[in-house]
Amino acid sequence: MNAKHLAHYIDHTALTAEKTEADILTLCDEAIEYQFFSVCINTCHIPLAKQKLAGTPVKICTVVGFPLGANLTSVKVFETQAAIAAGADEIDMVINVGWIKSNQWAAVKEDIQAVLAACQGKPLKVILETCLLTKEEIVKACEISKALGVAFVKTSTGFNRGGATVEDVALMKQVVGDMGVKASGGIRDTQTALAMIEAGATRIGASAGIAIVKGIKDNNSDY
Amino acid sequence: MNAKHLAHYIDHTALTAEKTEADILTLCDEAIEYQFFSVCINTCHIPLAKQKLAGTPVKICTVVGFPLGANLTSVKVFETQAAIAAGADEIDMVINVGWIKSNQWAAVKEDIQAVLAACQGKPLKVILETCLLTKEEIVKACEISKALGVAFVKTSTGFNRGGATVEDVALMKQVVGDMGVKASGGIRDTQTALAMIEAGATRIGASAGIAIVKGIKDNNSDY
Repeated sequence: MNAKHLAHYIDHTALTAEKTEADILTLCDEAIEYQFFSVCINTCHIPLAKQKLAGTPVKICTVVGFPLGANLTSVKVFETQAAIAAGADEIDMVINVGWIKSNQWAAVKEDIQAVLAACQGKPLKVILETCLLTKEEIVKACEISKALGVAFVKTSTGFNRGGATVEDVALMKQVVGDMGVKASGGIRDTQTALAMIEAGATRIGASAGIAIVKGIKDNNSDY
Repeated sequence: MNAKHLAHYIDHTALTAEKTEADILTLCDEAIEYQFFSVCINTCHIPLAKQKLAGTPVKICTVVGFPLGANLTSVKVFETQAAIAAGADEIDMVINVGWIKSNQWAAVKEDIQAVLAACQGKPLKVILETCLLTKEEIVKACEISKALGVAFVKTSTGFNRGGATVEDVALMKQVVGDMGVKASGGIRDTQTALAMIEAGATRIGASAGIAIVKGIKDNNSDY
């Protein structure tokens, strides 16, 4: 894989609370330059990014119910609708971990289903927050997501105890098959990114996208 | 101050993603037993708490735009409306830190103002996330909150780099005067809670409420 190919796996991510408008504009510039798949930003920054990225192939990925996933379902639905109206191309929602831990799987499913309906065909990624789940819970969450027809399952918010592991990505891939798997949280170098792809990841969420693509040793890269 | 009096300062808090329905019911039971002012919970748990707390004086406090504060304003407004419709008595919203850091103070103000309007008279607390702000930014955020007529300014989400400090609480109190000040984040014992109140806090947000009230040495307490 060359650097350009690897770049197309990456959602170039900036989700911390204190990110400024200047930070978002820089993120967009970098995504254009390095040909990342998307910028992944909080909803308040979508209008700015939409303007900045107009006429470029870089997509806008945003987050819903982030990072706790413990909102009323109606709130996640509204946030999805508002994000898409503002210009979001992809929605990364956080699953309701508390309901999983309460064995309320019907509510977990309805929560995802309602957001999926609000996506109106835009790709939905379901963030499992794998660091909080057992292997059995990861499998069940993947099965539900696959049955509902979401586009991706995603490992982590990056705001909890742990991020993506090769083991969890492989487990998720095993369950979802040809659905998308996004590995995110703690992926900061080329080697880790390639290991995630090797394990089955079809998308990488990272704030270290530039380091990840620059670290690749090939002669086919412009940068 | 005796333990009962101290208990009435406390929003008994459980906001992590993995909290179960059983955890929320226990939180409610504890709030009833120890006479805490409220339970502070994520919006998805409001219906359960509302049912459990019916007929008791314990209020339901919830969080909006939590913990990043980086949502579209329309999303914070909807979340506030949905939370109140579900039974919330008080709303703790996170200020848009990124807009503060971008010097977009008009947008910061409009964000708070829109949520305040959605509160329809229910007390609104504006979470400043003081660990991310300069002293000047804390002062300005307090001035805006006071001018808009919100009920409280609040130090912290408890999900970022730092929590409440006596110094920040005193600074906030100095600016807002007889408005409420909620100290939250990292308050785990009686001594710290009393220091916050001494500095001007009129409410304490803590998951360690029981330890806080049990640690007080007095003869007037039932517990």
